[in-house]
Amino acid sequence: MILLDGKKTSNDIKDEITIKVAELKAQGKKTPHLAAIIVGNNGASVTYVNAKVKACEKVGFESTLVQLSEDISEDDLLAKIEKLNNDDAIDGFIVQLPLPKHIDEHKVTLAVSPAKDVDGFHPENLGRMVLSLPTFLPATPYGIVQLLDRYNIETSGKDCVVIGRSHIVGSPMSILMARNTKVGNCTVTLTHSRTKNLIEYTKKADIIIVALGVPEFLTGEMVKDGVVVVDVGITRVEDASKKSGFRLLGDVKFDEVAPKCSYITPVPGGVGPMTIASLMMNTLQAVENK
Amino acid sequence: MILLDGKKTSNDIKDEITIKVAELKAQGKKTPHLAAIIVGNNGASVTYVNAKVKACEKVGFESTLVQLSEDISEDDLLAKIEKLNNDDAIDGFIVQLPLPKHIDEHKVTLAVSPAKDVDGFHPENLGRMVLSLPTFLPATPYGIVQLLDRYNIETSGKDCVVIGRSHIVGSPMSILMARNTKVGNCTVTLTHSRTKNLIEYTKKADIIIVALGVPEFLTGEMVKDGVVVVDVGITRVEDASKKSGFRLLGDVKFDEVAPKCSYITPVPGGVGPMTIASLMMNTLQAVENK
Repeated sequence: MILLDGKKTSNDIKDEITIKVAELKAQGKKTPHLAAIIVGNNGASVTYVNAKVKACEKVGFESTLVQLSEDISEDDLLAKIEKLNNDDAIDGFIVQLPLPKHIDEHKVTLAVSPAKDVDGFHPENLGRMVLSLPTFLPATPYGIVQLLDRYNIETSGKDCVVIGRSHIVGSPMSILMARNTKVGNCTVTLTHSRTKNLIEYTKKADIIIVALGVPEFLTGEMVKDGVVVVDVGITRVEDASKKSGFRLLGDVKFDEVAPKCSYITPVPGGVGPMTIASLMMNTLQAVENK
Repeated sequence: MILLDGKKTSNDIKDEITIKVAELKAQGKKTPHLAAIIVGNNGASVTYVNAKVKACEKVGFESTLVQLSEDISEDDLLAKIEKLNNDDAIDGFIVQLPLPKHIDEHKVTLAVSPAKDVDGFHPENLGRMVLSLPTFLPATPYGIVQLLDRYNIETSGKDCVVIGRSHIVGSPMSILMARNTKVGNCTVTLTHSRTKNLIEYTKKADIIIVALGVPEFLTGEMVKDGVVVVDVGITRVEDASKKSGFRLLGDVKFDEVAPKCSYITPVPGGVGPMTIASLMMNTLQAVENK
């Protein structure tokens, strides 16, 4: 069993980006600049956004953190987005999800200019992905593709099961894995809450991507020997023994599943860091697109 | 075995649209107006476009056929598209595919305004479909969804296999059938040329949608009893015994497969007419969106 080390791979990618940024600067070109909007101060969201800002510093990007109050109106948030759309200094930006209930996430997603949508959530970018046109791939699926690519995992003709049909991970992931690209060409089955006899699908899968948000959902009896498992889940579970008061659990019952795997991502240190690396890649891409 | 009668269902839909158009007219509102661009005079394309124009007449739409020469330049075609984008009289328009080799189909697809893209091919509309936002669904997948809906075929929790991953049919179809909608909630497997042991997937499928363009590809031994089969293929095969010199074959070996089916679409008279009905629905929708 080989661990798909997202932390290491993410660092490799960041090192490569650092070199490219230095080259840009040496050529007198603009330093890539990522902005992040965060609304309120949800603990997990703050952690994620801070990690993104830190990654920007590491690779030599400029970054701007736009911290907005939990009770900001939808209109005011949309106005902030429009300002970033029109700010030539900003190459790409993200709006950290989830948003407070009084704000329509779809409206927000649609408001971000597709040219600056480095999270890859805008419908135009998702549609370009379906059509295999140049685009910003959604950050988490893009990170998973990178991870599989850098470990040279053969995907062509493999049976791939995606668990969970979220707009952000499961659905786009199912499309990406079926495309005619180097990481791709899988026979992909998209499963979800209405799927009957899930085990019949997972048991014969060569590659399983779990993006459900249910801790330890995928158990050892559900997979075959030699499977590749990618665990997108990351749930905070209370744990008084930890200094932070919680520990992080993936969607995979790791101790049961890992021994059967050829490759598996750990949680944390698997998909999470790759999502951030993708964001950096997309931001660099945004600069190169100009 | 029940035939999914696309001709009858399409006529039902057209009758419903006819009534709505009459209502619009009675209210002094604009008559929906569809335009179609055809480049060159490929036999099949001319037949399809003429059928679309005829459908417009039937439901009371205005229609405009823009016939362009086979050797029109890409720039000139894009200029024609821009003209239709800006023409307030035109509610929606399509560019009949395929286009001559010297024209980039993606450029053409991207040039059509998403608000008038009643074929549902623009990436913004495809992405809106992935996100379950209001959109113009691609005409053929939309037609298939309508057909399954009007025959009250239960799809929730069913095993659905899509054969073929084209941008126009297979890929969007796989997304639609997995969405959390009335016709949807299937466990969907998207199969294609790189799929190994296809029969293992088709043999256990409750619903099979074949969109490959290989005549009589799906044979009797590949399906289980009670399966629902939707045949998107329509290939002209030379046949000297026919007045036209050809006959139309689907992707399904009908005589073998049909006896095992609970429902099956015939070719012709199945998916084809539904695609045109979808185009009419989308055009009416374009007017209502204004």
